[in-house]
Amino acid sequence: MKIPVLSCLLALVPICTIATRAPAQTNGSSASEHSRARDLGVPFEGTPGPLNAITDVKGVEVGFRTLISGQGKLRVGVGPVRTGVTAIFPRGKKAVDPVYAGWFTENGNGEMTGTTWVQESGFLYGPVMITNTHSVGVVRDAVIQWQLQHGTSAPLSDWWSLPVVAETWDGYLNDINGFHVKPEDGDAAMEDAHAGPVEEGNVGGGTGMICFEFKGGTGTASRKLPDKFGGYTVGVLVQCNFGTRHLLRIAAVPVGNEIPGKRIWDDDTGSIIVVVATDAPLLPHQMKRIAKRVTLGLGRLGSISGDGSGDIFIAFSTANAGAGLAKKPVAVETLPNDRMDPLFEATVQATEEAVVNAMVAAKTMTGIDGHTVEALPHDQFRAVLKKYNRLVDSK
Amino acid sequence: MKIPVLSCLLALVPICTIATRAPAQTNGSSASEHSRARDLGVPFEGTPGPLNAITDVKGVEVGFRTLISGQGKLRVGVGPVRTGVTAIFPRGKKAVDPVYAGWFTENGNGEMTGTTWVQESGFLYGPVMITNTHSVGVVRDAVIQWQLQHGTSAPLSDWWSLPVVAETWDGYLNDINGFHVKPEDGDAAMEDAHAGPVEEGNVGGGTGMICFEFKGGTGTASRKLPDKFGGYTVGVLVQCNFGTRHLLRIAAVPVGNEIPGKRIWDDDTGSIIVVVATDAPLLPHQMKRIAKRVTLGLGRLGSISGDGSGDIFIAFSTANAGAGLAKKPVAVETLPNDRMDPLFEATVQATEEAVVNAMVAAKTMTGIDGHTVEALPHDQFRAVLKKYNRLVDSK
Amino acid sequence: MKIPVLSCLLALVPICTIATRAPAQTNGSSASEHSRARDLGVPFEGTPGPLNAITDVKGVEVGFRTLISGQGKLRVGVGPVRTGVTAIFPRGKKAVDPVYAGWFTENGNGEMTGTTWVQESGFLYGPVMITNTHSVGVVRDAVIQWQLQHGTSAPLSDWWSLPVVAETWDGYLNDINGFHVKPEDGDAAMEDAHAGPVEEGNVGGGTGMICFEFKGGTGTASRKLPDKFGGYTVGVLVQCNFGTRHLLRIAAVPVGNEIPGKRIWDDDTGSIIVVVATDAPLLPHQMKRIAKRVTLGLGRLGSISGDGSGDIFIAFSTANAGAGLAKKPVAVETLPNDRMDPLFEATVQATEEAVVNAMVAAKTMTGIDGHTVEALPHDQFRAVLKKYNRLVDSK
Amino acid sequence: MKIPVLSCLLALVPICTIATRAPAQTNGSSASEHSRARDLGVPFEGTPGPLNAITDVKGVEVGFRTLISGQGKLRVGVGPVRTGVTAIFPRGKKAVDPVYAGWFTENGNGEMTGTTWVQESGFLYGPVMITNTHSVGVVRDAVIQWQLQHGTSAPLSDWWSLPVVAETWDGYLNDINGFHVKPEDGDAAMEDAHAGPVEEGNVGGGTGMICFEFKGGTGTASRKLPDKFGGYTVGVLVQCNFGTRHLLRIAAVPVGNEIPGKRIWDDDTGSIIVVVATDAPLLPHQMKRIAKRVTLGLGRLGSISGDGSGDIFIAFSTANAGAGLAKKPVAVETLPNDRMDPLFEATVQATEEAVVNAMVAAKTMTGIDGHTVEALPHDQFRAVLKKYNRLVDSK
Repeated sequence: MKIPVLSCLLALVPICTIATRAPAQTNGSSASEHSRARDLGVPFEGTPGPLNAITDVKGVEVGFRTLISGQGKLRVGVGPVRTGVTAIFPRGKKAVDPVYAGWFTENGNGEMTGTTWVQESGFLYGPVMITNTHSVGVVRDAVIQWQLQHGTSAPLSDWWSLPVVAETWDGYLNDINGFHVKPEDGDAAMEDAHAGPVEEGNVGGGTGMICFEFKGGTGTASRKLPDKFGGYTVGVLVQCNFGTRHLLRIAAVPVGNEIPGKRIWDDDTGSIIVVVATDAPLLPHQMKRIAKRVTLGLGRLGSISGDGSGDIFIAFSTANAGAGLAKKPVAVETLPNDRMDPLFEATVQATEEAVVNAMVAAKTMTGIDGHTVEALPHDQFRAVLKKYNRLVDSK
Repeated sequence: MKIPVLSCLLALVPICTIATRAPAQTNGSSASEHSRARDLGVPFEGTPGPLNAITDVKGVEVGFRTLISGQGKLRVGVGPVRTGVTAIFPRGKKAVDPVYAGWFTENGNGEMTGTTWVQESGFLYGPVMITNTHSVGVVRDAVIQWQLQHGTSAPLSDWWSLPVVAETWDGYLNDINGFHVKPEDGDAAMEDAHAGPVEEGNVGGGTGMICFEFKGGTGTASRKLPDKFGGYTVGVLVQCNFGTRHLLRIAAVPVGNEIPGKRIWDDDTGSIIVVVATDAPLLPHQMKRIAKRVTLGLGRLGSISGDGSGDIFIAFSTANAGAGLAKKPVAVETLPNDRMDPLFEATVQATEEAVVNAMVAAKTMTGIDGHTVEALPHDQFRAVLKKYNRLVDSK
Repeated sequence: MKIPVLSCLLALVPICTIATRAPAQTNGSSASEHSRARDLGVPFEGTPGPLNAITDVKGVEVGFRTLISGQGKLRVGVGPVRTGVTAIFPRGKKAVDPVYAGWFTENGNGEMTGTTWVQESGFLYGPVMITNTHSVGVVRDAVIQWQLQHGTSAPLSDWWSLPVVAETWDGYLNDINGFHVKPEDGDAAMEDAHAGPVEEGNVGGGTGMICFEFKGGTGTASRKLPDKFGGYTVGVLVQCNFGTRHLLRIAAVPVGNEIPGKRIWDDDTGSIIVVVATDAPLLPHQMKRIAKRVTLGLGRLGSISGDGSGDIFIAFSTANAGAGLAKKPVAVETLPNDRMDPLFEATVQATEEAVVNAMVAAKTMTGIDGHTVEALPHDQFRAVLKKYNRLVDSK
Repeated sequence: MKIPVLSCLLALVPICTIATRAPAQTNGSSASEHSRARDLGVPFEGTPGPLNAITDVKGVEVGFRTLISGQGKLRVGVGPVRTGVTAIFPRGKKAVDPVYAGWFTENGNGEMTGTTWVQESGFLYGPVMITNTHSVGVVRDAVIQWQLQHGTSAPLSDWWSLPVVAETWDGYLNDINGFHVKPEDGDAAMEDAHAGPVEEGNVGGGTGMICFEFKGGTGTASRKLPDKFGGYTVGVLVQCNFGTRHLLRIAAVPVGNEIPGKRIWDDDTGSIIVVVATDAPLLPHQMKRIAKRVTLGLGRLGSISGDGSGDIFIAFSTANAGAGLAKKPVAVETLPNDRMDPLFEATVQATEEAVVNAMVAAKTMTGIDGHTVEALPHDQFRAVLKKYNRLVDSK
């Protein structure tokens, strides 16, 4: 498939971006039938929710704005463009009701704005946004602008906003220093937010990502706990852009060594942003405990959380609606700490699967200066799983 | 007044300790009538509770074990002994029900065991104990022993204890390397725990303390909020052992410069442990916010939190009884964040007053090798307050 | 004095901003001769550097962009505008060499981007920028843009930037939701950076600030240690926007109670950003220790660090040049921990003085909807100091 | 093999403990020839040092005191006893020179005393001790006592000690509430400290441990970096007591599912203490980065870091000798952050291997009330590795 190119006048606008979710290139296998890791026969533990997506947590809405345009040699400010914006609203885009949240960073070579207030207040107000490293600012201010237009949680005379915006770096494929993300792209991602299935791979903020030197991007997964553990749902969304090839293990299988491919990085360059949602009634300090478990999921994949990586995680609970708007003492619900293990395990499992989903969904992409990042080759991947007796019947 | 000396055989027991709250020496002024800062005419803000003590928070019980014996030259293992143990039970010594808690350290040259679990779980199980630096271990294990004897929060097959024990250093007055605190002294402090007025000055863990190079020790204070702010109570107990003289300012007055005295330290040596109790319904992350305000109270007194100081604070809420024993999701109450300012102010105020109370109550003490630490001279202190137009009518 | 109004076409540009350091209004006293706290006879401790400013630390450069335009009723997007941007370069604006740094937040109702990487790496790359709450994003991206134009610390193929941008809220005086700060204002502040005297009061990011319900803004101070303590310099710059009137004490004098004025806030609304610079050779964990001492300085002024306040501090050391650019093991210098007390004390002192300097320098300002914030009345302030016997001869 | 029982009078001493490293029972396979994971054919990445032990880091000394006595029904205070003490000295037991260190907790249901000062100062003074949960206090004070006898880092008039003592819970096998660890056991562990090979399995603090419901205990491993990465060594020692069976995966293989065995725990009960040593020249904030990578190693093994687990890690560098004793500014060496990835990877690898080593070395043990914990069956383990095509030639 060819990259769509929009012909236009570049008068005052530095580049004509188009919103498209069309993959830049295919991944060389019959991908349409095997778009998710589970479909390929990867063995995962635990039971996913109906969508196996963060949106299995009721209320959560996800939206994307994908910017793909141009090809060939890098012309800063012109392109090629391979980037975008992702928006995750805990209670849907119409709510102003904050959620209890916690965050954690395994390695801090990255940015997630707004976390100082999350940590202090225990609340996440507004969406979690993810974009490229050099567009955090424009998206941040766009969130404030958008909130002003759509209603705020307090009168304007007593209102300010400290949006949560995270990033990973897509400069290998994208003209990141061209600042192609505009306020309206932030708006578009927010407006696009919806319940239901979540697109994966080269979409939104994940468009230009690279994961274990395969094409990475956006991925999601979920777990539904048995009733005896409360029947809660845990959903995860990742924007994955980390890892060097040799480290990669999937279902504990040394995939990276088996499919060495060609090297892109000298070091672990890149990052991973992970958003965890749950409907379990957890307090802020418990949400931080959830956020910290993401590391263990990444550990299963072989991560060493390299110096160049911004591995930053945020977790929120959609329970306790209204707690953040109360003006007097209010009752909230909390799960006992010693009932949290199933949620910890679900978080680890869903993190692991969401990353693999991102890699499975992402298609090979060519960006600036002809840089090409290959998708995980599905057939070869299945062969490796089989070699290690780990391929399972995918239906 | 003479130091009581107990004559006894020193067969296998290295020293005969006696529990006494008798001051080693007087402070040279008619102290009995003016035992608290407020009585001396120090202007404080806010309204204290009935006892102006941490025990104004219903349920809180405080007990002491004071060890004073021997005089003259230091003989390690023999004495002189000027030390003790303090026990603070959030819900009284008979309860196994934990409280929501948070902790903070402004400078970490000190120890407060058990805080890793406080931070993780959000709960404080059992008492907060305070003793001297080199006796933290013995008191810690004594708490476990005591809990085994008095009933635990879970069956023993599934129970362990991570006691919270803090310390400050009393080696200028006390034979700290003689390890005079024994398990039974920990027991005695716990058994002594009671509601009602709290002794101050040279008692319990505070026995051998030095504060701004005056005699320090144990101090307490409280604030009762107006009904419009919820009517909550905040109580503070300090074991204060920090500060160099020139830094000291009380109620606007540069007391340290006005009463320079003779120097004991070259640097800011010592520490301060602060325990904050409240009945306001606050969650763990909110308790941490309270704990952090202690620094501001110490700032008012001139603290720079020197390198040698262990300035460690723990705050707990007696609200939400039963939350820590629940086996399924449970409702707890939380005060909105934007209603916390009066509690912050109360914490700052009560911290400031508790330290001054400790200094006002403490009597001049002579310890090892004839080391003498003078009490804050009440009359001179009043004169200085007057000089700066800050002496108020103390009734 | 009248507010300068620039007449112009408002075609595509929403507002014509002008860079001016002209005060909107005078503070009603002969301010020109007494522009700093020390000149008014406020007693401070310690010895300031030659400029009594953060620029006493060699290499530090500070620049401002001040945006003042319009008056009368608020028209969102039009004005009135009372805001700006402040830039602090640790090694001057031409250096790409990072500095060791640490940060701390006493209360997190605010934003300082880039701190996750400061914490992780121990380095501050680039300037510290301060602006209003809703303009953090635009300034952040502007820094990246500016760095691209002026040279980066690594080849672009391996470079990304995580700028440090902090904020306080000026919505009482400024059309904060009009987003008047533009990328070129960030540029202008950076370009303006210079060594030498630092302007105070209503300048840069501090333009529309309110401190203890007096007019606040930008303030600075420094301390020079005696040679026996290494002769190091500590400089502080604050953008102060915090506090309710009754809390204010200066030189421990209850100024807030003595000059109650009219109330602006119900709660402690606002924030304070504090930047501490030193030439003492301190490692990152030691810089964090310095940053934490800022709280004690604010404590001296009466702060309770209210829920609505973003009290966020960053400290850096200009020593160890080149350490952050090394490609192999490198020797760096560190001061022993037990030599840090004079630096702690200097930090506390300079923080205290910088805030008072901001209030002394700031002039009464009228902003949106006729909101007026009065400057600290110098004469009345001096009278209060005198009442408490704290007025010193200011030479 | 029978448990050795020492016949003696129980006059004043509650139990006759014996120091023995004799396994309580064999693990049912010819263990003597296959005492380490690598010998069994487990595939690991990276190159170990000569001993594949923490003592490959020059200077590090490790000592144990193992307490095994009694069998049959639990009689609190009498036995059976299955516990001990482990001592790790960074620079050998004769040094008073501290090391740069950092610590991290992935889940805080545990204790590591002394960490507040490690965090603040950046230094670890003295040894890291590990024992059972209820004996932390006695070991802590024993360290102080021992230091007093062997020389301290400062004159006693200006010296105090904040020992680092960690724990895991052995109450399933050991009479933990009998407090069998005495000060002299702490001494014995310290005195036993030596360079060279490190014993594994049921020794020292690891004696009564359970890991993934197999017998756990003490384990160690190391990595030696290639010269191009500096040639540094990373050594890890674990006291592993965590995990539920089904979670366990080793080298790609779902060992836990393949060898389900009988359940011991309902939840993830237990803990893991990990000590990381390196000779790479890292500053305190860099040591914390190292400590955080331990989580990733545990993630590879399937850990979810359950609520009941105290997963606490400390990392230190033996480089920069003398830095902690300096009395004036001193030069220290630091590795650039972007050179740390090989150290991160080594930490992850060595952590993974050290845990497997502990399980491979530990022998089946029967403790209180006939509780028996089976060792990992070597032959079955090898068969499982083979089933998944992961068995490697072990020489």
